[in-house]
Amino acid sequence: MEKINLEAIQKAFNTLQTVKDTFSKKGWFPATSGNLSIRVKGPPLDKNQSIIAITSSGKDKSIHTPEDYILVNMDGNLVLPSNLKPSAETLIHTSIYQQIPNCQAVFHIHTIPNNLISELYADQGKVTFTNHEIIKAFDIWKEDASITIPIVENYFSIPKLAEEISKVIQPEVPGVLIRNHGIYVWGDSDFTAKRHLEAFEFLFEYQINMYFLKKSK
Amino acid sequence: MEKINLEAIQKAFNTLQTVKDTFSKKGWFPATSGNLSIRVKGPPLDKNQSIIAITSSGKDKSIHTPEDYILVNMDGNLVLPSNLKPSAETLIHTSIYQQIPNCQAVFHIHTIPNNLISELYADQGKVTFTNHEIIKAFDIWKEDASITIPIVENYFSIPKLAEEISKVIQPEVPGVLIRNHGIYVWGDSDFTAKRHLEAFEFLFEYQINMYFLKKSK
Amino acid sequence: MEKINLEAIQKAFNTLQTVKDTFSKKGWFPATSGNLSIRVKGPPLDKNQSIIAITSSGKDKSIHTPEDYILVNMDGNLVLPSNLKPSAETLIHTSIYQQIPNCQAVFHIHTIPNNLISELYADQGKVTFTNHEIIKAFDIWKEDASITIPIVENYFSIPKLAEEISKVIQPEVPGVLIRNHGIYVWGDSDFTAKRHLEAFEFLFEYQINMYFLKKSK
Amino acid sequence: MEKINLEAIQKAFNTLQTVKDTFSKKGWFPATSGNLSIRVKGPPLDKNQSIIAITSSGKDKSIHTPEDYILVNMDGNLVLPSNLKPSAETLIHTSIYQQIPNCQAVFHIHTIPNNLISELYADQGKVTFTNHEIIKAFDIWKEDASITIPIVENYFSIPKLAEEISKVIQPEVPGVLIRNHGIYVWGDSDFTAKRHLEAFEFLFEYQINMYFLKKSK
Repeated sequence: MEKINLEAIQKAFNTLQTVKDTFSKKGWFPATSGNLSIRVKGPPLDKNQSIIAITSSGKDKSIHTPEDYILVNMDGNLVLPSNLKPSAETLIHTSIYQQIPNCQAVFHIHTIPNNLISELYADQGKVTFTNHEIIKAFDIWKEDASITIPIVENYFSIPKLAEEISKVIQPEVPGVLIRNHGIYVWGDSDFTAKRHLEAFEFLFEYQINMYFLKKSK
Repeated sequence: MEKINLEAIQKAFNTLQTVKDTFSKKGWFPATSGNLSIRVKGPPLDKNQSIIAITSSGKDKSIHTPEDYILVNMDGNLVLPSNLKPSAETLIHTSIYQQIPNCQAVFHIHTIPNNLISELYADQGKVTFTNHEIIKAFDIWKEDASITIPIVENYFSIPKLAEEISKVIQPEVPGVLIRNHGIYVWGDSDFTAKRHLEAFEFLFEYQINMYFLKKSK
Repeated sequence: MEKINLEAIQKAFNTLQTVKDTFSKKGWFPATSGNLSIRVKGPPLDKNQSIIAITSSGKDKSIHTPEDYILVNMDGNLVLPSNLKPSAETLIHTSIYQQIPNCQAVFHIHTIPNNLISELYADQGKVTFTNHEIIKAFDIWKEDASITIPIVENYFSIPKLAEEISKVIQPEVPGVLIRNHGIYVWGDSDFTAKRHLEAFEFLFEYQINMYFLKKSK
Repeated sequence: MEKINLEAIQKAFNTLQTVKDTFSKKGWFPATSGNLSIRVKGPPLDKNQSIIAITSSGKDKSIHTPEDYILVNMDGNLVLPSNLKPSAETLIHTSIYQQIPNCQAVFHIHTIPNNLISELYADQGKVTFTNHEIIKAFDIWKEDASITIPIVENYFSIPKLAEEISKVIQPEVPGVLIRNHGIYVWGDSDFTAKRHLEAFEFLFEYQINMYFLKKSK
């Protein structure tokens, strides 16, 4: 452990704080829900020994305290002794990092639109968006582009939930919806993960409105 | 009275100011509505002699003045001489503190979603939310969790209203809706009461939208 | 004119700036629309010689400049020489001040809800709200309280519009809607006018939502 | 090139920064979408040699960096050597400047309402707004005023898209919608372009709501 780069940890914590602050102001962590993680870079952190910095459980994310973040390994265990506990959902984060090798950041938030979409399209297990300029935010550059995000049921058992998520994850789609349990989204940087998240949330809000409008025709 | 802990009072006022500021920025006190209270801790404040700090009546809660808070006892009377008057609704606060022994904070706000829900489900006298991850914010940790919040009619007489509320309060549900008169919510700390409130408001907004979507199918 | 109280003018300008800033952050002045006025107090400003401070025409209200406010008399003419021009709608303000003797502040804003309500209920020429706790913000304290706000057609001629407004104004209802032209609201202080405005906007937004919900039943 | 006025460039960059900041806080650049440009004034910048300052591609517009803006000529090429690349959509901006001689600023943003409107009225290729006070923001001052904004299909090829836009642009209507690709809006100053944009967005949001309300009657 002594080889961990302290600067890398500090940089990861700083990035989490910036993202946490931005999302908190948007109301994206209602009732202390949601969590954010980022892969800590630097030697000797190769793929097998990856460490992630993650928000600690049950905090009010609109304020900053010295206890906001913890370090966990790929088993979801604390890297350093601490009286803080990792969020139960840490396992979902580590599972995503392990499945997507170039994943550097994972964000989980609850919004009204992402919860509504997850319920409305739960039976199909997925929802598809077509012909939106904003799809370019997923680095999909072609005519008549579309993107399909999977939706999984919300299991009470987190290991079971992590397993179900791992079954539906596809490398080209950087997100998954859990029924009435928000979205997990990721990217090859915190910047990219944020761009993916904003694009998904835009599509969800649009779709909810269009669903109303088309039905009421 | 000389035994009251001045530090405890100051801490209660500071907490109220932080909460007031946060809620005010969300637009949760339209037209000077709403009020916040917190139990003042420290000797000799046992259950029978409890004192609460509460927002004074009719103020613009988006600004701070030296007259924003007052101290009242469990009868709703001023503890110290003041030219400020307690809100008429102080009796609802004290009634809740008396009924829920571990209650430390009571928040009352008006939002569009909580008023709409209170009207849409008024005939049933309650509304139930099921299978939402956010229900964990109420410290309910089980499969297929649900929570039912009672709704009471809005009586012009505050003592009558306080009495009706006391009839429907249940220890495991930290809130009550009044028809077109917002929500009262509480917790064993201001942090918990805020978490409960955000969870309720999330569920209300979700439900209003789902009500539209399901009806327009 | 030399008798005008400079302090009173400065106080009026300061109040307008605070209100302008608050409303601007809410998005209540889209596309430079809206205007605010306040009666300048102090000798020799009795009812017959009243002067009002009012926002000047066509400014971006999200920024502050030395040209944001002007002084006009009850004929809507500039009190002091200026290269600024009063808003055409100044006449509506002065008309309201003349009709309501204790009126101290008049606010005019456009919001999506107030424009929608003004259109939906235009044929009736008014809209009534009943059984809302928030009605107490109009200082109406009784069981089964209600308030009815008049709606007038939007005439291109401002003198004609001012005349139509003066026909429907009632002392006990501090506001009037113009069809697809926002609301005028007033009070016996800027504080009261703001409380009235927030209460009306709350009722409008509630009503729009309830209109959807009831229709889609 | 040495004749370019450095002060004029700095002024253009400062203006873009202010507008970028304002729009970013409104959420008008979701997922790094959107771009802003302004004509750089001063000799020798006559109509044939115009240079525009424009936001560089793919940046998070909620933060400020030294790489936020670039200078391009009317062919959409960089004026000064840079490792930054112009947005692909620069061609749409330059096309608008060339077609509207007094155009000084062009803003492109994505919002839920402008995307919904662009889809709902795509078949008609336009949408008309009538009898709204806010239409005065387009400097249209007459009884029963109306404004019609054209809607074009969203072509993947930007030159093709720029061409289609140029076909529908009308001097008296300072905007065009692209199907599920937001709005382009302009004016004879950044102030005017912003006023036009706010007016359009107000009309779009109003219309979406009225569409619901009328259909659900």
